[in-house]
Amino acid sequence: MKLKPGEHIWFNEYNPGNTSGVFYKINKFLHSEQTKYQRIDVFETPEFGRVFTLDGLTMTREVDEFIYHEMITHIPMFISKNPKKVLIIGGGDGGTAREVLKHDSVEEVIMCEIDERVMEVAREYLPTTSKEFDNPKLKLIAEDGAKFIKQYKKYFDVIIIDSTDPTEGEGGILFTEEFYQSCYDALNDEGVFSAETEDPFIHKDWMKLSYNRISNVFKNTKLYMGFVPQYPPGTWSWTFASKGLDPIKDFDPLKVKNFNKELKYYNAEIHVGCFSLPTFVKDIINK
Amino acid sequence: MKLKPGEHIWFNEYNPGNTSGVFYKINKFLHSEQTKYQRIDVFETPEFGRVFTLDGLTMTREVDEFIYHEMITHIPMFISKNPKKVLIIGGGDGGTAREVLKHDSVEEVIMCEIDERVMEVAREYLPTTSKEFDNPKLKLIAEDGAKFIKQYKKYFDVIIIDSTDPTEGEGGILFTEEFYQSCYDALNDEGVFSAETEDPFIHKDWMKLSYNRISNVFKNTKLYMGFVPQYPPGTWSWTFASKGLDPIKDFDPLKVKNFNKELKYYNAEIHVGCFSLPTFVKDIINK
Repeated sequence: MKLKPGEHIWFNEYNPGNTSGVFYKINKFLHSEQTKYQRIDVFETPEFGRVFTLDGLTMTREVDEFIYHEMITHIPMFISKNPKKVLIIGGGDGGTAREVLKHDSVEEVIMCEIDERVMEVAREYLPTTSKEFDNPKLKLIAEDGAKFIKQYKKYFDVIIIDSTDPTEGEGGILFTEEFYQSCYDALNDEGVFSAETEDPFIHKDWMKLSYNRISNVFKNTKLYMGFVPQYPPGTWSWTFASKGLDPIKDFDPLKVKNFNKELKYYNAEIHVGCFSLPTFVKDIINK
Repeated sequence: MKLKPGEHIWFNEYNPGNTSGVFYKINKFLHSEQTKYQRIDVFETPEFGRVFTLDGLTMTREVDEFIYHEMITHIPMFISKNPKKVLIIGGGDGGTAREVLKHDSVEEVIMCEIDERVMEVAREYLPTTSKEFDNPKLKLIAEDGAKFIKQYKKYFDVIIIDSTDPTEGEGGILFTEEFYQSCYDALNDEGVFSAETEDPFIHKDWMKLSYNRISNVFKNTKLYMGFVPQYPPGTWSWTFASKGLDPIKDFDPLKVKNFNKELKYYNAEIHVGCFSLPTFVKDIINK
């Protein structure tokens, strides 16, 4: 059988250990560069729309990025009593900022992404996630989030850690207990927090470690989960944390019912159901 | 770089449309045959233990098959008031039968798998799932389930449809409304039912169709979901149905608390939480 032009062009993503992974057909390469921090690629696929990868790992797929972004954002946003000031660390594609800005109460969103090129590439090639980049409420900062956050004390209502996968060793500065402590300090007394904390299958040690480190800093900490096909193995976890507010007891389903923007994954039932953890996941985090 | 022996041996599983998929490294081929119905392969992998495939699609992975099998089984089993007689259609690897037999009330389990060779291969190569094949309460039948079930009227307490993916057109006999009607007829008045109903991403049309067909037959029908990394995209759905019992209102968490066998995924919170559906999933099934 003769291949049609481009039929042999595939993207292969290897899971940790390099003994499994996923592949997609590529219709067209859109962009490829090595920045000071990482390699960026953007390509068009027949099945997932545009795909944005960092160091060969999928960060964003046009067709289903809404799931990850809604889940990291709306769980803390609907628990915060009146979220006005929000800090996003990482999140360079803009999807989390887009979700935060769906809340009318928000007055100021600071997004601190270390790699300026990620934001520039998102602006050019990922219009769906970067659509709020020109919103006057949003301030884009290209700095090291762990240093940047230290200037704030009891300032933010919501902090969201939308980082890439942890690296070897300490897992990168955004997975250290010191960094989580800085987040705690930067939140006001009613502040709430969420962070991506990997998955219980192929990154289970990282999920355990990041959950435990967050628990060491915050009084109230709860892991939650979602169906995220863009990240192998299709399951993802985040950790909610706060200085006092409880993600279930302090949840008001009416606020979701009366929300005036479109949501495709998150709803009031999901808000509660996503905290139901499988037994093997509870065992990993000792809950 | 010189490859070590076998390093270039990989299994590639293509999703519908053939523009994406997953791959695993293979340590060792254990078995391969073409039966009257399908191609069977069993191989050993470094990451997932033994993997069992039918026509190139993963059916069972040793390390995480427990999730699918617990979820298809215990949701209906814990709703049935006193499950004594259970019918499994399909389920040739034996994992569902193993879960059913964890319930002490069970007196008779009939497993009707069309392909005798699947059961024989499972007995030889998948000891973890087929471990109850010699249990005197279990009767293994190698027949067409859609014909077999017609001899029963108001007989079973629980019926579980553990089928392979639907085929083109009607989706195979185990996805027709006529077949679901036979299930209804074979259940007693307090009978409960579960069926695998694919996923809302790559098989979303099949999920919708099978859910709708089950709804057309049963009074009470509810879709539920789980994290199932062995099936791309890592999300799976099943549909609970009954002649009257409700999977949430008639659920008694104490029964789960007092259960005397090990469960690794299913628990009382999951029983409730798995019925919380993302908005886009509700939209697919018009709920």
